[in-house]
Amino acid sequence: MTVLTVDLQDRSYPIHIAPGLLKTSLAGVDGRRVVVVSNDVVAPLYLQCFTRSLQEGGAETMEIILPDGEAYKTRDSLDVIHDRMLEAHCDRSCVVAALGGGVIGDVAGFAAATYQRGVDFLQAPTTLLAMVDSSVGGKTGINHPRGKNMIGAFWQPRQVIADTTTLATLPERELSAGLAETIKYGLIRDPLFLDWLQENIERLLARDEEALAWAIERSCRNKAEVVAADELEASAHNGRALLNLGHTFGHAMETGLGYGRWLHGEAVAAGSVMAAELSRRLGWLDGAAVDGVKSLFARARLPICGPALGADRYLDLMRQDKKNSGGRIRLVLLKGLGEAVTSSDVAESEICAAITACCE
Amino acid sequence: MTVLTVDLQDRSYPIHIAPGLLKTSLAGVDGRRVVVVSNDVVAPLYLQCFTRSLQEGGAETMEIILPDGEAYKTRDSLDVIHDRMLEAHCDRSCVVAALGGGVIGDVAGFAAATYQRGVDFLQAPTTLLAMVDSSVGGKTGINHPRGKNMIGAFWQPRQVIADTTTLATLPERELSAGLAETIKYGLIRDPLFLDWLQENIERLLARDEEALAWAIERSCRNKAEVVAADELEASAHNGRALLNLGHTFGHAMETGLGYGRWLHGEAVAAGSVMAAELSRRLGWLDGAAVDGVKSLFARARLPICGPALGADRYLDLMRQDKKNSGGRIRLVLLKGLGEAVTSSDVAESEICAAITACCE
Repeated sequence: MTVLTVDLQDRSYPIHIAPGLLKTSLAGVDGRRVVVVSNDVVAPLYLQCFTRSLQEGGAETMEIILPDGEAYKTRDSLDVIHDRMLEAHCDRSCVVAALGGGVIGDVAGFAAATYQRGVDFLQAPTTLLAMVDSSVGGKTGINHPRGKNMIGAFWQPRQVIADTTTLATLPERELSAGLAETIKYGLIRDPLFLDWLQENIERLLARDEEALAWAIERSCRNKAEVVAADELEASAHNGRALLNLGHTFGHAMETGLGYGRWLHGEAVAAGSVMAAELSRRLGWLDGAAVDGVKSLFARARLPICGPALGADRYLDLMRQDKKNSGGRIRLVLLKGLGEAVTSSDVAESEICAAITACCE
Repeated sequence: MTVLTVDLQDRSYPIHIAPGLLKTSLAGVDGRRVVVVSNDVVAPLYLQCFTRSLQEGGAETMEIILPDGEAYKTRDSLDVIHDRMLEAHCDRSCVVAALGGGVIGDVAGFAAATYQRGVDFLQAPTTLLAMVDSSVGGKTGINHPRGKNMIGAFWQPRQVIADTTTLATLPERELSAGLAETIKYGLIRDPLFLDWLQENIERLLARDEEALAWAIERSCRNKAEVVAADELEASAHNGRALLNLGHTFGHAMETGLGYGRWLHGEAVAAGSVMAAELSRRLGWLDGAAVDGVKSLFARARLPICGPALGADRYLDLMRQDKKNSGGRIRLVLLKGLGEAVTSSDVAESEICAAITACCE
């Protein structure tokens, strides 16, 4: 088993990565009530063995099952969790455990952050995207009709349990979506990992266990380092904000299409291509580098063109992004392959041109 | 001007206490957007001068006015604030400022805590209760039909601006409600202040400026010390939990009657009498001490008997209290006048007897 640590002083926590972890008796829950939040796709596959492991660890369990999908990352789902917990008289000693992908982790984490001013939280990601990205770092929240993740909180889990066996049942489209965030780490800060991904992307698609385990570990290590250095995304020009490569374009796609039409990872892929294209227009990348980025995403079976929303609609949606400050669109761009920077002073005409060049 | 500090390392903040502060140009808002949240009673009195001061400090302001009262400390009010902020394209550099009493502070603070995972927050309390208690310490939240403050977060303000001039327009009933929390500090940890209150309660009711300023400062000093030692109410048997004297009984009254029938401070007064009576039954206080507590609250024109909900209904509501752990009702009781303790092992029959003895 690989164990990494997210170093946040008194809020530090371990990330456990190994096959079969959901079947392993869990520490830290003895005598406690654990509220397992999952969805109707994951629950039939893994809920029973997970709750058995929790019970073997001494926990009393209860379950809240939401419908699957980004369309349910809403205020209503949040209310369902809170209402059920209150009905069951859960007190502050309870633990909320998210069993599922990024949507379940985000909404369950936000429920934990705001139930009685905060209760313990445990992440059990069952998708590649959740394992390599969303389960680590404490970003929780829900969507709003006006934008993704607009309502939320930073709330770190007490532990992350990534059972890689669950990837065997992951739909192909979701596997690819997870690879988008994996490739992102290579692009923003880890050129050696980027080289490794260029060589091994087909092994990952074939679900080679060794390759997946390595990609997850390397991704989590990157994420843990970035989060430890800038937990609250407080650094204006570096730090955690760099993890949002492709996300400002991508969020516009997700919001513009309506939540759930594209997977988050798909939007990140097409958004990262836009960011690479814009970086080329600024003279930071050459055409060959942009083609390499496109090719890697395409080999991972991810979209490299955004939906045709129209550049104006993209800009309008991007102006609502949380990373903006003082009314300027803030973007993560690439100074080179493996080196990201944030910029708030790109002309909107250039942004438009990059969007137009990378749309269907 | 008195300036106290709540010492929380990188989240430390000042409490400014003085007459006329709302008319004074504010620091820390230059070039920023400030979302002033107030209610329809306070706004006609103080909103204009407050926004002018903010603008003189360099801020751009917008206003969100909620209806007055505890009945509006709800999910709906929270949604109104978030929706308006999103419509106005507020980004993470904005500041939410609460201008009003405890309800406005709690709901605006929770909106700040959860808007785009947290934006800066400023408290401008205009009631005695908010000045001496709720504006300090970072507790934010909303009520749920199943209990008070069930949904919320810890979110510290960047500064507290207590303009004591505003107390001139405070209704008498609200002045008394604020005194309940003031008396609470004397009862739980400050016997000298309790003596001072016994001697000066009529001066406070008469709104003697010097007496009020002293009571606010002493209360805030007590609160700041307790919060600095136990910010997140993590200590099981001491610390911040002791501030909840009378609150477990009191919350049951507020929830049982329906929010808004009794003021929070009124419920705290009658609840503190129940706690004193229960402490007497446990042999910790003598009858004269309990009579002294009752007399002080009565002189402050506060109720010393709870509403006749029936002891069973009280217990049922108290079982939902956030302070509970492992299904036991946890109470704050008095080992003596000026010394509080928490206890989870009082027999429910004793709790019932104390409730019955102190109900209308």
